Amino acid sequence: MNKHAIHHITEAPYAYGTGDKSLHLKLRTAKDDLKSVVAYYKDRYDWENEFDTIELKKANTSDLFDYYEIDIEVEEKRFRYFFELTDLEDNKVFLNERGLVDKKPSNPNAFQFPFLCKADLYKEVEWAQEGVVYQIFPDRFSNGDKNNDPKGTLPWGDKVTPETMFGGDLQGIINKVDYLSDLGVSILYMTPIFKSRSNHKYDTTNYYEIDPQFGDNETLRELVKKCHDKGIKVVLDAVYNHSGSDFFAFEDLVEKGEKSKYKDWYFVDSYPVDIEEVNYLTFANKVSRMPKLNTNNPEVKDYLLKVSKYWIEEIGIDGWRLDVCDEVDHAFWRDFKKAVKESKEDGFIIGEIMHESNSFLKGDQLDSIMNYPFRECCLDFFARKVMNADELDHILAESRALYMNSVNRQLLNLIDSHDTARFLTECEGDKDKMKLAIALQYTYIGIPYIYYGDEIGMEGKNDPDCRRCMIWEKEKQDLDMLKLYKSLNDVRKKSKALVYGDYTNICKDGMALGFIRSYRDEKVLVLINNNEDKYEYSLDINAPAYDLYENKKQVIDGKIVLEPMSFKILKLS
Amino acid sequence: MNKHAIHHITEAPYAYGTGDKSLHLKLRTAKDDLKSVVAYYKDRYDWENEFDTIELKKANTSDLFDYYEIDIEVEEKRFRYFFELTDLEDNKVFLNERGLVDKKPSNPNAFQFPFLCKADLYKEVEWAQEGVVYQIFPDRFSNGDKNNDPKGTLPWGDKVTPETMFGGDLQGIINKVDYLSDLGVSILYMTPIFKSRSNHKYDTTNYYEIDPQFGDNETLRELVKKCHDKGIKVVLDAVYNHSGSDFFAFEDLVEKGEKSKYKDWYFVDSYPVDIEEVNYLTFANKVSRMPKLNTNNPEVKDYLLKVSKYWIEEIGIDGWRLDVCDEVDHAFWRDFKKAVKESKEDGFIIGEIMHESNSFLKGDQLDSIMNYPFRECCLDFFARKVMNADELDHILAESRALYMNSVNRQLLNLIDSHDTARFLTECEGDKDKMKLAIALQYTYIGIPYIYYGDEIGMEGKNDPDCRRCMIWEKEKQDLDMLKLYKSLNDVRKKSKALVYGDYTNICKDGMALGFIRSYRDEKVLVLINNNEDKYEYSLDINAPAYDLYENKKQVIDGKIVLEPMSFKILKLS
Repeated sequence: MNKHAIHHITEAPYAYGTGDKSLHLKLRTAKDDLKSVVAYYKDRYDWENEFDTIELKKANTSDLFDYYEIDIEVEEKRFRYFFELTDLEDNKVFLNERGLVDKKPSNPNAFQFPFLCKADLYKEVEWAQEGVVYQIFPDRFSNGDKNNDPKGTLPWGDKVTPETMFGGDLQGIINKVDYLSDLGVSILYMTPIFKSRSNHKYDTTNYYEIDPQFGDNETLRELVKKCHDKGIKVVLDAVYNHSGSDFFAFEDLVEKGEKSKYKDWYFVDSYPVDIEEVNYLTFANKVSRMPKLNTNNPEVKDYLLKVSKYWIEEIGIDGWRLDVCDEVDHAFWRDFKKAVKESKEDGFIIGEIMHESNSFLKGDQLDSIMNYPFRECCLDFFARKVMNADELDHILAESRALYMNSVNRQLLNLIDSHDTARFLTECEGDKDKMKLAIALQYTYIGIPYIYYGDEIGMEGKNDPDCRRCMIWEKEKQDLDMLKLYKSLNDVRKKSKALVYGDYTNICKDGMALGFIRSYRDEKVLVLINNNEDKYEYSLDINAPAYDLYENKKQVIDGKIVLEPMSFKILKLS
Repeated sequence: MNKHAIHHITEAPYAYGTGDKSLHLKLRTAKDDLKSVVAYYKDRYDWENEFDTIELKKANTSDLFDYYEIDIEVEEKRFRYFFELTDLEDNKVFLNERGLVDKKPSNPNAFQFPFLCKADLYKEVEWAQEGVVYQIFPDRFSNGDKNNDPKGTLPWGDKVTPETMFGGDLQGIINKVDYLSDLGVSILYMTPIFKSRSNHKYDTTNYYEIDPQFGDNETLRELVKKCHDKGIKVVLDAVYNHSGSDFFAFEDLVEKGEKSKYKDWYFVDSYPVDIEEVNYLTFANKVSRMPKLNTNNPEVKDYLLKVSKYWIEEIGIDGWRLDVCDEVDHAFWRDFKKAVKESKEDGFIIGEIMHESNSFLKGDQLDSIMNYPFRECCLDFFARKVMNADELDHILAESRALYMNSVNRQLLNLIDSHDTARFLTECEGDKDKMKLAIALQYTYIGIPYIYYGDEIGMEGKNDPDCRRCMIWEKEKQDLDMLKLYKSLNDVRKKSKALVYGDYTNICKDGMALGFIRSYRDEKVLVLINNNEDKYEYSLDINAPAYDLYENKKQVIDGKIVLEPMSFKILKLS
């Protein structure tokens, strides 16, 4: 037995509540090393009865590790447990708090999950798991009201620079809610809409005012109402890492220096505050217009939490996406979660974190992150073809093992955004590559995510080029791509397995990937042939199936041949 | 290279701030598997410069693993890093967020510690690390005021039962502060002193009233003042998992049932509340007098946090020990920490948790726990002799690897308490065994801890027998044991290395243990011969040394012979 590989800790994602009385346990072992893993468990105050036992199931496999999982339940919600590990030669060892021991351990050293407290129990957001996100950069989506166009607005579709404005606004989005509904998305995420001098509005002037070039509270209210009528939730962008330099508190600080009441709202190195010299902490490197807020100051925290509650309670928005989330303290996000969930129990909280985020995703802070590591995989496997299916499968497995299962179902699996080159451009315009990446987005665990314009084949290099004006002329749109997205949105709506199902790989041969998503009685087989040639999948399946994407029956007789660069989504019966 | 053994995560204890700009990194590998581990690091927004590099130091070794550690620093407190691991054959692999890779990874997949936020930076409690705890069970320590003796008070020293009262009180402790000071302890921890019907007072009647049989606010104020004058800090016991059944809120609930305002202060299964039937959640199994409080209810939380602040602000106590801490939610303890540190910046927070407590000890909740796993090791190695020095060293190494180094220095390394049999009784009265365990307590990382009476050789089986009346008659006290404790308290005060030093094992041969504690230029050699025979330690040391315990010079010439069941504490020069 490979003892170095064995890992378990008494917190998420290795031990966490999944219900009022049920505890989820995960244990890591070396790959293919064990015959079985059994949990011994009972109430921590039960001194009389023997331990109950239950066998764990192998839920995930990466290149090095197997991950075993199970839910256990005890009446009083107080758990004491240890594991029995049996290798292929029937040798047994036991894992408890002291580590690995050869003899069945006595009570004192068992792991303990002392009490499953309601306050610590993570409540997942089901509407998000079942949803599809559509991201809009408001200045560039649709101009519905020429009267609020800012000075210097350029003609729609002109060349984009960091400074250009194009007049897109909330009325424009309102006009396109039917388009979004028809496309089949269910979560609208807009980058910031509060008053600011820039086109991207990540330098907030006023957190309580919709930027007049986008509309006002009434326009937003109408947008949210129209969205809700169509079953679309609305998520706004909260920029709390920094404010704009023309935010009232920073202006006061610049004016009054050390005597300002807002002295402790920022991190100032010396006085007077000098915007040229940038003698204060900012977002990134000396971005003078984005002074970093001191979220450790209770006044600042209080101010921002009130903002967060205001837009939920006043307008009825459904969630927040948190800009530069990972440079703000955990303590702030814990209070933020409390504030948001008080205002809306199922409000959805998404962190902009571009990397592994376990310390934010244990249930006490965020519900989700922008899953950029997923994009990285799609780039390497589909766009660049520098990763094979085996490597992809292993990286996805390790990534799933990082978080609670509920959180995995809530990650925003994007392939691009306003902060990256567009995926089609990364594919050098090769739409077949992009289509396969989209197929994975829609069939893998997590929330599919469309960056506006991707659905009609828009291209764009890094910021600002990825923020071009939406193309509305039908003749310039890629209607095949649009059809693909619509169809996949339909497929996703029809299948609980694609939302809630487990993932089991059944093929990772070179660039050919195949996996099954299973939920209760439903099984969906997904085949993605990322080869320039035909690929024949050998399958242990001889049964009729239903092609959810093509909407037709298909018989599987032990094999399926896929055309080059194509995919299939088959419901097994 | 053993790839399965390699482990790093981006949170405590593998990555955490140790200063305003410094990040502590830890990486686990298989034991004796690597030649070196190097961290590559730079500012996360630095796109121009190469990564800086620094070699990690091997800080800990257990039976399976080596733990490498280092502090890194970047000016802007935003870290991006990965590791280079070189094995004994000079093969290199790199560890980044995606796992192990053979080539030096490109930027996007580096680990990130995005910003070292002040709010998340853990502030250690130095006075605690430098201290020695003395625990008192007030009814049994000293009766200083006969006037407040409860009805039925038994003569001092009579047989103890679960119900007996002996009249010990705060005036009694005041009378003995000089004794404590003379003994050399610096932290007084008293089990509960608030009004309650029992002798142990873990069933609180009134959190705002000192039990009249112990005294009143003025007596406590005098005790705290006298302690502070002698350099002794005072820690009280907070019982927040449950109240007494005669606490006003529970009495109201029993009386008014579903109509009580305090309905949501407890967990009631059915109405009317029935104390006979125990149809409500309690501490342990249906302990009717200890109904479990609903700390998830903001009213309850608010009430208890105000209590916590009151005694700090009103009387000036220095910390809280938290009863049944692990059955109360993390969310509560996070707010508790905030409340306590607001009232006293260096207030000390100790959880009663008898097992591995990583989820409580990342810096956002507790400062310390009652380290019962340390006691278990002492029982197995010294009292029962069923563990050898090698096993002891490995278990201690794994235990150190669980927490931040600052927290390890703050753990309450007890060998017994009011909830266990006395250690001398576990040793079947063999004082030599007990003395060696005490020597380890005083020389190992963490806070030495004396349960009242241990210092004069008191015995006692499990509760209630371990709660006998303190023996004050000199002729019945073990004065040798008292001398040992006094001497060790002196030794500890004289040595920064015993408080702040690293631990390096230099001998673990059968029952012979030897280790060095080093801090800056100071090195202290500790030898504990847990054999019934003499043991000759072979040492790489040929130099004069100073015996801190015997207060005399000692020359080390490559070896030292220790008498059976004896120890030495030598300052190396």
